[in-house]
Amino acid sequence: MINPKLPKVFYGGDYNPDQWPREIWDEDVRLFKLANIDIATLPVFSWAHLQPDETRYNFEWLDEILDLLVKNGVYACMATSTAAHPAWMARRHPDVLRVDFHGRKHKYGQRHNSCPHSPTYRHYAPEMAKALATRYKDHPSLVIWHVSNEFGGACYCENCAAAFRGWLQKRYGSLEEVNERWCTRFWGHTFYDWEEIVPPNTLSEHLSPYDQTRTAFQGISLDYSRFMSDSILECYLLERDALKEITPDVPVTTNLMGHFKPLDYFAWAPHLDVISWDSYPPMQVKPWNVALLHDLMRGLKEGQPFMLMEQTPSQQNWQAHNSLKRPGVLRLWSYQAMAHGSDAIMYFQLRRSQGACEKWHGAVISHAGHENTRVFRESAELGKELKELGSDVLDGRIEAEVAMIFDWENWWAVEYSSGPSQDLKYVPLIHEYYGALWRAGFPVDFVHPSFDLSKYKIVIAPLLYLVQPGFAEKVEKFVQAGGTFVTTVYSGMVDENDRAVLGGYPGPLRKVLGIWAEEFDAVPPELKNEIVMASALGDLQGSYECGMLHGLIHAEGAEAVATFGKDFYAGMPAVTRNGFGKGAAWYIATDPDTKFIEGLMGHLCAEHGIEPALAPTEGVEVTQRKNAGRTLTFVLNHNAEPVQVDLTPVAGRELLSGEQMSGTAELPGRGVWIIEKGG
Amino acid sequence: MINPKLPKVFYGGDYNPDQWPREIWDEDVRLFKLANIDIATLPVFSWAHLQPDETRYNFEWLDEILDLLVKNGVYACMATSTAAHPAWMARRHPDVLRVDFHGRKHKYGQRHNSCPHSPTYRHYAPEMAKALATRYKDHPSLVIWHVSNEFGGACYCENCAAAFRGWLQKRYGSLEEVNERWCTRFWGHTFYDWEEIVPPNTLSEHLSPYDQTRTAFQGISLDYSRFMSDSILECYLLERDALKEITPDVPVTTNLMGHFKPLDYFAWAPHLDVISWDSYPPMQVKPWNVALLHDLMRGLKEGQPFMLMEQTPSQQNWQAHNSLKRPGVLRLWSYQAMAHGSDAIMYFQLRRSQGACEKWHGAVISHAGHENTRVFRESAELGKELKELGSDVLDGRIEAEVAMIFDWENWWAVEYSSGPSQDLKYVPLIHEYYGALWRAGFPVDFVHPSFDLSKYKIVIAPLLYLVQPGFAEKVEKFVQAGGTFVTTVYSGMVDENDRAVLGGYPGPLRKVLGIWAEEFDAVPPELKNEIVMASALGDLQGSYECGMLHGLIHAEGAEAVATFGKDFYAGMPAVTRNGFGKGAAWYIATDPDTKFIEGLMGHLCAEHGIEPALAPTEGVEVTQRKNAGRTLTFVLNHNAEPVQVDLTPVAGRELLSGEQMSGTAELPGRGVWIIEKGG
Amino acid sequence: MINPKLPKVFYGGDYNPDQWPREIWDEDVRLFKLANIDIATLPVFSWAHLQPDETRYNFEWLDEILDLLVKNGVYACMATSTAAHPAWMARRHPDVLRVDFHGRKHKYGQRHNSCPHSPTYRHYAPEMAKALATRYKDHPSLVIWHVSNEFGGACYCENCAAAFRGWLQKRYGSLEEVNERWCTRFWGHTFYDWEEIVPPNTLSEHLSPYDQTRTAFQGISLDYSRFMSDSILECYLLERDALKEITPDVPVTTNLMGHFKPLDYFAWAPHLDVISWDSYPPMQVKPWNVALLHDLMRGLKEGQPFMLMEQTPSQQNWQAHNSLKRPGVLRLWSYQAMAHGSDAIMYFQLRRSQGACEKWHGAVISHAGHENTRVFRESAELGKELKELGSDVLDGRIEAEVAMIFDWENWWAVEYSSGPSQDLKYVPLIHEYYGALWRAGFPVDFVHPSFDLSKYKIVIAPLLYLVQPGFAEKVEKFVQAGGTFVTTVYSGMVDENDRAVLGGYPGPLRKVLGIWAEEFDAVPPELKNEIVMASALGDLQGSYECGMLHGLIHAEGAEAVATFGKDFYAGMPAVTRNGFGKGAAWYIATDPDTKFIEGLMGHLCAEHGIEPALAPTEGVEVTQRKNAGRTLTFVLNHNAEPVQVDLTPVAGRELLSGEQMSGTAELPGRGVWIIEKGG
Repeated sequence: MINPKLPKVFYGGDYNPDQWPREIWDEDVRLFKLANIDIATLPVFSWAHLQPDETRYNFEWLDEILDLLVKNGVYACMATSTAAHPAWMARRHPDVLRVDFHGRKHKYGQRHNSCPHSPTYRHYAPEMAKALATRYKDHPSLVIWHVSNEFGGACYCENCAAAFRGWLQKRYGSLEEVNERWCTRFWGHTFYDWEEIVPPNTLSEHLSPYDQTRTAFQGISLDYSRFMSDSILECYLLERDALKEITPDVPVTTNLMGHFKPLDYFAWAPHLDVISWDSYPPMQVKPWNVALLHDLMRGLKEGQPFMLMEQTPSQQNWQAHNSLKRPGVLRLWSYQAMAHGSDAIMYFQLRRSQGACEKWHGAVISHAGHENTRVFRESAELGKELKELGSDVLDGRIEAEVAMIFDWENWWAVEYSSGPSQDLKYVPLIHEYYGALWRAGFPVDFVHPSFDLSKYKIVIAPLLYLVQPGFAEKVEKFVQAGGTFVTTVYSGMVDENDRAVLGGYPGPLRKVLGIWAEEFDAVPPELKNEIVMASALGDLQGSYECGMLHGLIHAEGAEAVATFGKDFYAGMPAVTRNGFGKGAAWYIATDPDTKFIEGLMGHLCAEHGIEPALAPTEGVEVTQRKNAGRTLTFVLNHNAEPVQVDLTPVAGRELLSGEQMSGTAELPGRGVWIIEKGG
Repeated sequence: MINPKLPKVFYGGDYNPDQWPREIWDEDVRLFKLANIDIATLPVFSWAHLQPDETRYNFEWLDEILDLLVKNGVYACMATSTAAHPAWMARRHPDVLRVDFHGRKHKYGQRHNSCPHSPTYRHYAPEMAKALATRYKDHPSLVIWHVSNEFGGACYCENCAAAFRGWLQKRYGSLEEVNERWCTRFWGHTFYDWEEIVPPNTLSEHLSPYDQTRTAFQGISLDYSRFMSDSILECYLLERDALKEITPDVPVTTNLMGHFKPLDYFAWAPHLDVISWDSYPPMQVKPWNVALLHDLMRGLKEGQPFMLMEQTPSQQNWQAHNSLKRPGVLRLWSYQAMAHGSDAIMYFQLRRSQGACEKWHGAVISHAGHENTRVFRESAELGKELKELGSDVLDGRIEAEVAMIFDWENWWAVEYSSGPSQDLKYVPLIHEYYGALWRAGFPVDFVHPSFDLSKYKIVIAPLLYLVQPGFAEKVEKFVQAGGTFVTTVYSGMVDENDRAVLGGYPGPLRKVLGIWAEEFDAVPPELKNEIVMASALGDLQGSYECGMLHGLIHAEGAEAVATFGKDFYAGMPAVTRNGFGKGAAWYIATDPDTKFIEGLMGHLCAEHGIEPALAPTEGVEVTQRKNAGRTLTFVLNHNAEPVQVDLTPVAGRELLSGEQMSGTAELPGRGVWIIEKGG
Repeated sequence: MINPKLPKVFYGGDYNPDQWPREIWDEDVRLFKLANIDIATLPVFSWAHLQPDETRYNFEWLDEILDLLVKNGVYACMATSTAAHPAWMARRHPDVLRVDFHGRKHKYGQRHNSCPHSPTYRHYAPEMAKALATRYKDHPSLVIWHVSNEFGGACYCENCAAAFRGWLQKRYGSLEEVNERWCTRFWGHTFYDWEEIVPPNTLSEHLSPYDQTRTAFQGISLDYSRFMSDSILECYLLERDALKEITPDVPVTTNLMGHFKPLDYFAWAPHLDVISWDSYPPMQVKPWNVALLHDLMRGLKEGQPFMLMEQTPSQQNWQAHNSLKRPGVLRLWSYQAMAHGSDAIMYFQLRRSQGACEKWHGAVISHAGHENTRVFRESAELGKELKELGSDVLDGRIEAEVAMIFDWENWWAVEYSSGPSQDLKYVPLIHEYYGALWRAGFPVDFVHPSFDLSKYKIVIAPLLYLVQPGFAEKVEKFVQAGGTFVTTVYSGMVDENDRAVLGGYPGPLRKVLGIWAEEFDAVPPELKNEIVMASALGDLQGSYECGMLHGLIHAEGAEAVATFGKDFYAGMPAVTRNGFGKGAAWYIATDPDTKFIEGLMGHLCAEHGIEPALAPTEGVEVTQRKNAGRTLTFVLNHNAEPVQVDLTPVAGRELLSGEQMSGTAELPGRGVWIIEKGG
């Protein structure tokens, strides 16, 4: 439970009362009650309002609204308001302004705009957190701290350059080691003095203003990505520590953003008491793309329930076409978050702003200002349901037997790579394999390479280009003990500094996979190859299309489960399986079509006796959360049309309706059941 | 009449004798005579030649050519030559150089390159105008002043920043008011000191170097657009005032550019004695796209005849593919300009330059240098016709009963908007509605929201996102009195500072429209919806395709003329009509297909008894100019093939041929008639 | 022979031993022997390693590897290592860093990064060359000097600006002449002081950051292109002179890059003892596209054999999809280079780097590090063949009767041009005409306009927009004497300063062509026209498609061989032939389809009795190299399938197999023969 003060699914969201005259606050509170809203995130962007200069604070308005809210049953997810520095700070202390990827010193504007190594920012931001904690430590509204907002971005200023040199010194000890790790003998880049190292951007090593991944030196760019993620984490920690000193027992979070590339969220997660994140899927998203992100966010803290900190109740403003959530979708997607581990359903935003770039972003309270809107009604109905659910769904854990590896450092490295193809992208492949598992109803945990694998039966690591030290040994142990490990083409190529493995690809994974990959052929996407099965494997037989990248591999103990059907490497293994101890390790030497991946995932799960909670129905998502001996089965119909679902394995009480359910029943279009097995 | 010195349609254009040796001048004069050219615009880009340093002028060559020209019947549209500063000025007074949208201080180059708040520019440009006026005030050639050239561009330097703060102070009085207007509480942008405000560009509030409309703060960006338009207007006025002081009776103009977004031409127009503009349509333009621009330019000064200051006699140089004007097109498009109110037909350029980036731009005199070219012949024939026409066509007024609203501030605002869709663009919608009226033969006036509407029967305001103060009240009065007002989806959304209207869209237009728009759904363009007519309306019946943006509206007194056919808002009103006083106000809650718009325009005109001058024929344009009891009917065949036209309603003398015309006659492909009714 | 020390086709490539520990060097030498490698290019990027500061050198490691190599039969193509400056130099002497096209001063990074007018660079680079020459002048390994690497790029700093002014002073004598040449009266750009001239980039005359060809002033941009090419050549010469002073008899080269636009290789060529170049065709290249580049590189020094300095043995790393060379392609393309005049087959690189952006670029020795790879085997087999060939193929000359004009200055000028169309590109047209000749088996020489034409029967000059002084007179003489000259639309348009010709296009070529081109119509590419033959001409009859650009020309003595079939210029000449003296000059007033060009080329060759060495077979390339009375015929099958080839005209000994060949024989897919006629 995030905070026993509010023992239910949190329901509310971002709230900016300082944008509105005082009389609106009373109207807000009336509407919050109507909508069963019990939490408000504030003050998210009020730094300038709270602090008009270096020495003065202006907390009175905040006192007043917090009192008003809590008196009306609305708790505070209390933000530290530091995500955009005040204009006065930018003018008087320009070190707070960033230098961008093109080497340009910025002037005042936008948000998420502070240099992470600005002495000014590092002084005033934690001071603000401390001031808030001091003032509100005993305020009855306080249930959780929300540090800053959607941390991100990068800076290339002289302060950052100096800090980067310090970071390198600490990580590598000597300049000789840096030269070695980055292979600076290449193109004569040997450094003789720390001061010679400059941040990698379009004034130095980067080749394109349009594509930030195009670098001449992967080593420095990869380390700068690590350094920036660490630098921004330090800024978070400065505020977190200031808060913890005063309110050690209040949980602290900051809102993450799913597949947000600049920050290694696995490195951040230990420092958050609870993960929270912002989910903004577009209209035509597939349900598994959203489910994946919930699972990834849940995985950051190894399964601990998280918070959906932001979603829109209706539409976004920054997409190409900002469609409305169709009726029922808000409710469906809210329960989907809960089905994957969320214990909070929160919005950006409670009341629509009147000005600036987010005024057309959806909100519970529209510009019309009253409750007579479709969006308010849907929000209020959901609020009522969540209130009635009470604490029943909290703290439930998902038990997955399949894990997928996700590693930000690998993501950075593989996309900085020059070759084998600009089309080699990490995240789409993750979605491809995850989607196949989702559609078959198998729950998945996302794990970092440093995590324990022993509790899983299957571990899938698509495109694990960069192999972390020690990971290969862990995989060997895992497979030895009976596990199935699956990886794909261009895995095992480099070490943690993007240095190619010597002696034969896939380097550290070669032993467990039982193969040697001699060459890789990347061809234009219109030139498809095919995977020809050596013999049937579960549902897999005949041949499948595959594309773009092809490993020319030699079995060294592994068996060729399938071979390439075309080109000069026809007959060479396309898919291998290496029995290793009690388990097996698979290598997929290309990017197969969806049917093949589905077939292979099905086969591997069947081998391990892994079964979905309910028989799969197209567009219907089923997950289970377990806690204290209770099993809640979430059944979500992502179709607009009703479906028949056989509930026999999970029969029991449906919590939203209170009805007993068993056998086959009809779930309406976009409908949701939460069934307590045997309940 | 622009100037009684030259009581006919001006015929000539830009002329750069200083690019040529003296002996060419005599040849030019010979050729001008052959072509019946009677006006030359000069010296447009001669600042450096006329003024070699801060203190010296070099006017002798200009004396000589002006004398030569006027002796040969060629008058001067006398330019002030300040549209590109001299290189010496850039080197010695770098304040004259601009800082661009990316924050980069420019060096010397290009044209239209002076910072509008450069003290140097503001000193020397009017000084040059004054020197020219002093020298040539009594020169017989002088018929009109042409200040600078194609004003435009923007600057973001420190001088502009300071001036922007002054402009804001003057407009809003206090910093508190600026904070209020821009909603700076959003993202904590509160300003405590004027100096904290910096120009909005990619170093501050703007989000993209590729798309200048993407801003984080609409309020500041919108005001900077106003400020820049005003700033450049001030530069124009400095020169204008210098000229007027010496030659108070000589008209002053500067050449505008149609749909040129950076300058609010409605704000400029009162300061020009006559509107002039440059028209460069591409080969595959539709005739109504050109007609619209003539009408818009005519509308700037409420119908006063204007000048076509520049067109090419053959081809441009800067298009993707610079096609030649097909034989007859030069003549056709020249008369089209006159048909819409032009009293001048002028070219860029009289003689083709030998060097730099416009040398492949068409000219009356080609690089061959003689008269034996197709282009010269066509130009000369047209010159002869215009000479023979004499003063007959001058000063004629077009009488339109339909007005369309056009508002630069609305254009800026709607395209700075983040949401509902990047595809929501102002100008294409204006062309869509205008085109339907053009094809049916209905004349249209373009009016600013501040203009008098009472003389019109129908006022159409597509996408009037920003509603100027007082406009809604004016519309109510107009409709009350029997007028028809038409507006479309996403109108009535914000005030003049881009702050969303509160209490229900479409805000100030809600009363007259009798509707409430609850939500707006923007969907990818491939997801079409349909408009289903409640009952037949004129030619409109059944259903029509509509797209992208859909208003979910509630009738509050209005009747639903049509409803949406699909999606979850099927059955909600797609088109409404609200009877209001003696008139009616229409709201089109989506972007309908062309057939629907044509049908609706036809229906509304029929309701008001508005009829075209002649029955419409595809590709044939008919307009009427009236003056002193005479009515001239222009009939223009935009088809390459001949057409039959029934002239009965306008029978009379055809001015170009001198023949009497009545009944049905054949107009050749690309042919033109100017018929004096009863003449 | 490049150097009698190594009297055979050089076989080897770039080698970076300093990237590897000492023990790898022995392994390298073992593998080089296995692969019959006899030359290594080094040290290409070792400046920082060789020179740790201003005063110290570190040559010991280089001594050691050079000794080791030569002891094992591997000679040195000795590089001067100056293609990337050391980081210490950038920090201590920032003048070495460039200012880019956007006016941004760079920091340390990448390669080919030195400002060509940096005093630091101009001091230390030749010093390094001198130090290397001094140390290794008598080293037995030294066979050729390789200055820097792939010279290129541009700088816009103040040092370059000053040098540009000096270059202009030298070229034009006076500022008045500069103003005249650049037509600075246009847009009032008159310069009164040399200091007013600034380099043309996006801070001055250039209009787009995305397309560097878009300039407002062609004159200055064209001269800056010349200046930069000259400036970089000066840097080359500083090193070359330093080397020559010490080792006057060792040949010096630097590796060129085919169609590399920034450098006028014809101006460079006299200063290289032997041309060398780097060839990196993509997978789906046509064989004639590669052949053309070999011929162009051979043409730089009027037919003298050249060196293929770099190619990949397998794949690149920087293409969109880095495909492997299919089996046999490495051998086929290597012999193709030799078939066109190369006396060296060399790779980038001998051993694959472990880090940074080229680690996925192919190499003879892979990351696996051993000889058991497909690529190593193919490389070794080729090495064996080349060893066995010995000196037999060296020094052979190709005798062509057809010449094509190629002129970098014309390339720059035509693509800086604003108009007639952005689609008018020089190089694709060169490939279009060359391809037609290649497919028919006719050898082609590329010549600069300043070269002697008298040895050719046909000279083809596609799109010769800029005509060099004296060229037209040379063409007249050439045609007078019986030659055939062919040029195409938009030739003869400007002088060497991009000033339009006056008096009638195509200016200086008008006399020999017997035409006047009145206008040019560029239409969108979907609007095709057609060429209608006046009567049959060889295989040409009926009509052919043509596109985009159309000259409206008048015959002035020439006959209309074909006319346009459509549009208002239907019936005007589309292709003309002007009998002139004993020869004829052709003008093709549009861009015809491939069939027409093939037909015309065939007709002209037939007229001159030019015949291919063997009858053409699709996909089979045939060339002949002649030396000392011996004729070697190269027959290359670019098809993957075998073909039948009638060898009768060249019967003799096939050098690779040693077999006698005559009559018709089967050449395997991707197979190669080198047949010594009568041998």
